[in-house]
Amino acid sequence: MATKQKLRIVPLGGLGEVGKNMMVVEMDNDAIIIDTGVMFPANDMLGVDLIIPDFRYLVERKDLKIHGILYTHGHEDHTGAAPYVVDKLRGVPLYATPLTAALLEVKLRDAHLLNETTINVFKPGDTLKVGPFKVESFHMTHSIPDCVGFGINTPYGMIVHSGDYKFDNTPINGLKPDYAKLGEFAKRGVLLLMGDSTNAERPGWTPSESNVVEAFDKIFREAKGRIMVATFASHLSRIQLIADMAKKYKRKLAIAGHSMTENVKMARKIGILKVQDETIVELGRSNQLPANQIVLALTGSQGEPSAVLSRLASGQHRQLDVMPGDTIVVSAHTIPGNEEMVGRTINALFRRGAEVIYDPIEAVHVSGHASQEEMKLLINLTNPRFFMPVHGELRMLRSHERLARQSGIPGENIFVLENGMVLEADRHGVYATGERVPGGYVFVDGSGVGDIGRTVIKDRETLARDGFMMVIANVQEGSGRLMNDPEIVTRGFVYLRDADELIDAIKRTTYETMESSKQLRNAQRRERLQEAINRLLFNETKRRPMIFAVVNEV
Amino acid sequence: MATKQKLRIVPLGGLGEVGKNMMVVEMDNDAIIIDTGVMFPANDMLGVDLIIPDFRYLVERKDLKIHGILYTHGHEDHTGAAPYVVDKLRGVPLYATPLTAALLEVKLRDAHLLNETTINVFKPGDTLKVGPFKVESFHMTHSIPDCVGFGINTPYGMIVHSGDYKFDNTPINGLKPDYAKLGEFAKRGVLLLMGDSTNAERPGWTPSESNVVEAFDKIFREAKGRIMVATFASHLSRIQLIADMAKKYKRKLAIAGHSMTENVKMARKIGILKVQDETIVELGRSNQLPANQIVLALTGSQGEPSAVLSRLASGQHRQLDVMPGDTIVVSAHTIPGNEEMVGRTINALFRRGAEVIYDPIEAVHVSGHASQEEMKLLINLTNPRFFMPVHGELRMLRSHERLARQSGIPGENIFVLENGMVLEADRHGVYATGERVPGGYVFVDGSGVGDIGRTVIKDRETLARDGFMMVIANVQEGSGRLMNDPEIVTRGFVYLRDADELIDAIKRTTYETMESSKQLRNAQRRERLQEAINRLLFNETKRRPMIFAVVNEV
Repeated sequence: MATKQKLRIVPLGGLGEVGKNMMVVEMDNDAIIIDTGVMFPANDMLGVDLIIPDFRYLVERKDLKIHGILYTHGHEDHTGAAPYVVDKLRGVPLYATPLTAALLEVKLRDAHLLNETTINVFKPGDTLKVGPFKVESFHMTHSIPDCVGFGINTPYGMIVHSGDYKFDNTPINGLKPDYAKLGEFAKRGVLLLMGDSTNAERPGWTPSESNVVEAFDKIFREAKGRIMVATFASHLSRIQLIADMAKKYKRKLAIAGHSMTENVKMARKIGILKVQDETIVELGRSNQLPANQIVLALTGSQGEPSAVLSRLASGQHRQLDVMPGDTIVVSAHTIPGNEEMVGRTINALFRRGAEVIYDPIEAVHVSGHASQEEMKLLINLTNPRFFMPVHGELRMLRSHERLARQSGIPGENIFVLENGMVLEADRHGVYATGERVPGGYVFVDGSGVGDIGRTVIKDRETLARDGFMMVIANVQEGSGRLMNDPEIVTRGFVYLRDADELIDAIKRTTYETMESSKQLRNAQRRERLQEAINRLLFNETKRRPMIFAVVNEV
Repeated sequence: MATKQKLRIVPLGGLGEVGKNMMVVEMDNDAIIIDTGVMFPANDMLGVDLIIPDFRYLVERKDLKIHGILYTHGHEDHTGAAPYVVDKLRGVPLYATPLTAALLEVKLRDAHLLNETTINVFKPGDTLKVGPFKVESFHMTHSIPDCVGFGINTPYGMIVHSGDYKFDNTPINGLKPDYAKLGEFAKRGVLLLMGDSTNAERPGWTPSESNVVEAFDKIFREAKGRIMVATFASHLSRIQLIADMAKKYKRKLAIAGHSMTENVKMARKIGILKVQDETIVELGRSNQLPANQIVLALTGSQGEPSAVLSRLASGQHRQLDVMPGDTIVVSAHTIPGNEEMVGRTINALFRRGAEVIYDPIEAVHVSGHASQEEMKLLINLTNPRFFMPVHGELRMLRSHERLARQSGIPGENIFVLENGMVLEADRHGVYATGERVPGGYVFVDGSGVGDIGRTVIKDRETLARDGFMMVIANVQEGSGRLMNDPEIVTRGFVYLRDADELIDAIKRTTYETMESSKQLRNAQRRERLQEAINRLLFNETKRRPMIFAVVNEV
């Protein structure tokens, strides 16, 4: 009878996009969630701080019993929406490895939500009983320690979720991918593999994190002055490497940047990051040491304007200044969309006299995601009947699909889906139902969640392009005459002080329009004025700012 | 006595940036200009259409006799500012190779400036007499035909300007780089080499344009349906390749996109592009042919919203629709900053059922710029005493500097300058004077040149982030009482229809502020109101829209 159970897989994030990863697995009325990530807005999502998954589906399916949220690793694109999800799905427990759990704890404490859930800590390799689900975690290598994938037992075979991974056979901390467990899954029969597609367009095999060691060793050996390394605040493997080099080359390590300082503190406490007390020094004290005895790890590898690296580049950091003789290493992948900001930061650091070392110049960074050969290996190791590429834009999912076909999975057994498209499985196999639940973006801006829609962003685009102009006309009640010069407010359009002629023309147009529209109703006069100003400005400047006219009857 | 002449080199563009290339070479009061390019705005230069060099220096130096503008090739970043420069420096003649001249002619005709100058056409290899300057042009390979560099004879040795180049030993049109001339220059003695730095961060040797032939051959051999190739409208070498493939595989070639259509017409007329009449077909007629007998060349390889490729992706092209079975090739380098738009366009084309082929998937594009080994070759071929890297952001110039040192040029003989920094030369050598002339950006927006400054762009940024809100309060003259509900206009902030509570709070705040400020002057009341609304909105939303309050006495 068990084989009549209805198995459903509902991706709410990560399909057709990079980020905000979130996946639901249901067996009848029981469900678990894998990951609750955020996504960082694209350049044209103006003013949006964060994007979280639209998980209305879970809120609305009152019949569904959600037994737990399982986390693959501690990166923002897999954990960042936790406060929003925990807030709506109170009482649902979380499951995470020690580092991931510690990062989640910080996040939930900041949001005052720590009491609304429990965090169950497990070790990579542990088997979890989450409601009726038996989930076998397995260790994977990536760019943060304590990463896992999940094997979910179902009556129709296993569902294997890779998490973010690469096959690093020489990881810095010595902890290798759990090939044995993947092989065992294959032996027991994998129904469906969901594999990370981030680097599906990249041929070959992603270099080991150990390759970076060599590049750093050379930099530390040769640097005569201070060394500063910018990387992601969460990139604890890289920070470990910097600490190891500091020890080897007898430099003291200081940390700059709030998020990195907090992460290092936490990671040292739980033992994930191994840095001896005598190696580490307060940022404030680092200035008193000779330049060749100090290395700084800092935030801002994406050129984010408020992070340490950009502030160094613009000379606006409170405690640090770039000096000739400094060696600055940008040790991170540039997230697509950030190329300009990163490039500009590097240029500015050169201008301040530093030697800057970055990816195409030296191998100071490697990707944390599998390349094509590793993807084919994962498929062949687990030998699944069905395959669904996850974590990637459509072109990456398509590229991953191509690899799966090359590896022998028939095209009809591969599902290239988008968020919200539902898969079901029964004893005959897996199929796409055609059902689609909401799976879009929810914009978080300031403290508001979801109150920014496409309309508001569209307005921001128009404002960003040509600004706005507002003309306020006070007219006499009764006669309809303009009583004084109209008030003109404009921003982002032209520099008003240099635009005397234009202002005169606007005044003239306002007088004329008010004069010729005296007999009309207020709303119509307003419209007329708006049109007249619009025409005038386009003729004079070939630009189309937003125009607002206000006609006040006085 | 000739050796007392003062030789000056004044870079007005291309140093510290990619684009708007422009260089001045002066001998006493005589001068020539090399290139007058535009630069395309970065993502955060909101609403700016184009950036041209600030050439005030030339306009203001009335004593300087400008004898000509010499063009290296026909790309926008070297020719695009021609209408603006010709407009200000009327009567100065232009010098260009046939293709470049034809492209300049189109540009100047569009701007109604064709009668304000003369275009002197020369062939690569010709020696030009421009005023007192004797300039020897030499052919270089790049991604557009008819490219040259210049050797300028001076009493102190030659100044060699590379133009944009790569050393393509198997160019599609068979015309090779003029190694012999470069060697001859070396023999005569090169004082200063100025070399293109665009790819200075790239190791190795840039592949030949011929490598793309193989990738295209495979695509044409295997495609069962239509083939569409998106590339730059000016990339005539690529268009030639597509036409050759069309002929080989018995397909008809149609062109989509205004700029490409115009370029193809012009290039066929002057014989630069060789396409037989029977190969080409009108876009409108192409829909009547069987899918496997057609290939389209189209614009939009950068994901530009109004170009053909994006309109195909969004289903908004008048004459063309993407169909399953179509093979779409994106055959162009993605300009930094455009990655998101290009990626999104590719995703959308996949969604419409096309097979999309692009750079990391197949080698359908190669760079037109030299890589590191070619740069070292150019230095060694010309054997200059002094070296100045040009065409690149600071990090690229620095990287080129490193290559020059490796090639044996002493560090003190290399000048990493920024725009506007003046070099002088005499019989002792070349030196940086420390003098700096204006060399910044002039923004072109709509029909305005230079009336958009940093202030306006800053306002646009603020508007783009959080929008604006305007509150208009009509108060009774004398009593100072608010007479009716304030009028609220907002855009880009929140979607007002969903914000009832917020609107109520704004009204309340306005009443309270007007009530408590009755005794104050109008300007002060306005300020008070602005502050109160600002505080309210930040508390409620954590956002900071621009706020304008208007207090009308009625």
